[in-house]
Amino acid sequence: MENQTAIRRLDARTPDFGQQLSDLLAWEAGADHRVVEVVDEIIAAVRARGDAALVEYSNRFDQAGADHIDQLLLDGDRLQQALAAIAPAQRQALETAAERVRSYHEHQRQESWQYREADGTLLGQQITPMERVGLYVPGGKASYPSSVLMNAIPAKVAGVDEVVMVSPAPGGVINDLVLAAAALAGVDKLLTIGGAQAVAALAYGTETLAKVDKIVGPGNIYVATAKRAVFGQVDIDMFAGPSEILVVCDGGTDPDWVAMDLFSQAEHDEDAQAILVSPDAGFLDRVEASIERLLPTLERRAIAEVSLRRRGALILVEDLDQALAVANRVAPEHIELSVADPEALLPGVRHAGAIFMGRYTSESLGDYCAGPNHVLPTSGTARFSSPLGVYDFQKRSSIIMCSAAGASELGKVASVLARGESLEAHARAAEYRIKK
Amino acid sequence: MENQTAIRRLDARTPDFGQQLSDLLAWEAGADHRVVEVVDEIIAAVRARGDAALVEYSNRFDQAGADHIDQLLLDGDRLQQALAAIAPAQRQALETAAERVRSYHEHQRQESWQYREADGTLLGQQITPMERVGLYVPGGKASYPSSVLMNAIPAKVAGVDEVVMVSPAPGGVINDLVLAAAALAGVDKLLTIGGAQAVAALAYGTETLAKVDKIVGPGNIYVATAKRAVFGQVDIDMFAGPSEILVVCDGGTDPDWVAMDLFSQAEHDEDAQAILVSPDAGFLDRVEASIERLLPTLERRAIAEVSLRRRGALILVEDLDQALAVANRVAPEHIELSVADPEALLPGVRHAGAIFMGRYTSESLGDYCAGPNHVLPTSGTARFSSPLGVYDFQKRSSIIMCSAAGASELGKVASVLARGESLEAHARAAEYRIKK
Repeated sequence: MENQTAIRRLDARTPDFGQQLSDLLAWEAGADHRVVEVVDEIIAAVRARGDAALVEYSNRFDQAGADHIDQLLLDGDRLQQALAAIAPAQRQALETAAERVRSYHEHQRQESWQYREADGTLLGQQITPMERVGLYVPGGKASYPSSVLMNAIPAKVAGVDEVVMVSPAPGGVINDLVLAAAALAGVDKLLTIGGAQAVAALAYGTETLAKVDKIVGPGNIYVATAKRAVFGQVDIDMFAGPSEILVVCDGGTDPDWVAMDLFSQAEHDEDAQAILVSPDAGFLDRVEASIERLLPTLERRAIAEVSLRRRGALILVEDLDQALAVANRVAPEHIELSVADPEALLPGVRHAGAIFMGRYTSESLGDYCAGPNHVLPTSGTARFSSPLGVYDFQKRSSIIMCSAAGASELGKVASVLARGESLEAHARAAEYRIKK
Repeated sequence: MENQTAIRRLDARTPDFGQQLSDLLAWEAGADHRVVEVVDEIIAAVRARGDAALVEYSNRFDQAGADHIDQLLLDGDRLQQALAAIAPAQRQALETAAERVRSYHEHQRQESWQYREADGTLLGQQITPMERVGLYVPGGKASYPSSVLMNAIPAKVAGVDEVVMVSPAPGGVINDLVLAAAALAGVDKLLTIGGAQAVAALAYGTETLAKVDKIVGPGNIYVATAKRAVFGQVDIDMFAGPSEILVVCDGGTDPDWVAMDLFSQAEHDEDAQAILVSPDAGFLDRVEASIERLLPTLERRAIAEVSLRRRGALILVEDLDQALAVANRVAPEHIELSVADPEALLPGVRHAGAIFMGRYTSESLGDYCAGPNHVLPTSGTARFSSPLGVYDFQKRSSIIMCSAAGASELGKVASVLARGESLEAHARAAEYRIKK
């Protein structure tokens, strides 16, 4: 067989390319009504019975074997034990990553501002952190310490008073790397609860857990459905779809490097999407050959192969301008500009979660330790949303302080407009402030 | 009768005040399953049949009498006609408001930033505007030109390419003030469609309408339900609850002014909430007397009376510190600091949509023309959300450009962490970049 992984080849210069690209990108999360029912029931139970419901669900779903909510609370000593228990190389890597993530995110902190007008009227914006934030961390296999750093550190940089982490511990087991990351990130409280019940407890509070203002972090379909259900009662981060990468390459990068960058997306899950765009047809051939050769050597080859066959593509374009047009249509979570002069292309990237520039910048460096966040908008939502950041844990209040003169002038304007909208009390409140 | 409007009196110094306050604030939007079904059906029809479905629904719900979608499209000439047709005083007031709103919002524009590390690695954040934004404007009685300014201007300041306004025109009638405001705000395209069908058209696009990235603006239960349904496909602004004001007063403001400020919230609708907090019991009596005397003189007294009786309160507190504690518990949409030294209280306001400082700054000045936005978080959501602003129409992309040396050092860290998470391809992609 010439093409074992059967990764799709498309040509952006053909007339039906637009439709082919739309088909390639099509992905819609199906709502599962049975899941919605189960989640609604769990939320109602936690609202009604608080801690008792949390203990019951944890015993039922996670074999917690608990009699009391206190047994599901981990204290700071346990986190410090984990930090001491992990391998020194891992601890050092986590510390370096935490430090770099903190340093980058400090650039995102927003500051209050004010300005005064000629008549003495003061206008501005006051920035304040949220009080309490909940961080969901999946248990078991998909338990990622990097995710703890990426979610908790921006909240702490924002000045959030209390970051409460929840993570299920099936059979009492919880990953030491995750606990060590929680210690380094400054998590304030940790409960070994999970699923929709954990989301409900964070959103509505229980006897022992004060309700939070925002819930962040990834989770399974029950967690995602619960987050959608409590959205409005609290803020949530985003609805994540499968992860994607789009590599733009001029043909000058080692094809093995590009193949491995595509794999590092494709190994996440079978719905992940890895796309390469290049004006060099020969380069696409070479990357395809690298894929064929390297794929069998991967630990997670079964997943990567399905992902590449189902959702991958090698796309030939006329030139780098057309490559950018394709990229902006995709609005990818991750884009690599694997070209000689990435800075020349940067202004043309209109929609992307994170932009990896140059041949040395593999996406995986950004996933772990470059500094920017790895929680990014997926499925084209980079058209309207942003990486998780400090700004997600800060909020703004408008400030208005009118001088007597300012209120008098503004009062005349507000009076006309309010009466035009038949809101008479608004008009009269403004008119009281007009100088006689 | 001593207390005709029966506005509630509470005392924050009593032991059960916390529960009384929770009861006062309790408000939960009920989901109406019948509405959800109707909306889902309308969205499916617009996705399936595009413009034809829009024409049908507009004929059915708004008596549009249209044969073709073109008849529901208003051109720029029609907007300019409206601007010429309105009274000069109204035009001038709208122009002043638009100018002040634009000037304030220009302070909110965010700029891209970058910094370079010692080894040459570049990190940063690129800010870009959304491409297309949809603005929903209710038709008929609740048609507010100020709302057009407040929603459209921040989008244009952000640099959005195209702002598409939709507004139903029952029987072909549309308010000239609304059209004039659209002209001043720089709205690019206007369709006289409304309801869930307009939201569906904006979210998914039709033959004549390109889909947008975000939908903003208020609407009835069908519009709100449709916005919730399409959230994720596009961004939306927020789920608005009833409007609220909380006035903190030291007793030194004219009680008629404070009463009218409370009315200007209460006149919005019967669920609106107006609360006065003061350490001066005699002042609460005087404001109550003003309410009794002025209420009968209001054009919208029927609505204001129900609102005050149902959800209003005059709250006695120990001192201004306790007043702020009450305010932060409420996290009000609007707070007035009607005190001698409002700047001393400002840092203590932790959660509020907009802060009106000093006796001259009536909320209604901010509603129309002070400059800050009047689209604000309601029902306590100021704990985690912000006024509508330019930042709602901009998005961020992380920038990472590693030098060869930087990639080598980061590669070592990423490799350890990726292998700790069993993501081998991530590790190998990083390891390729480590210097031999």
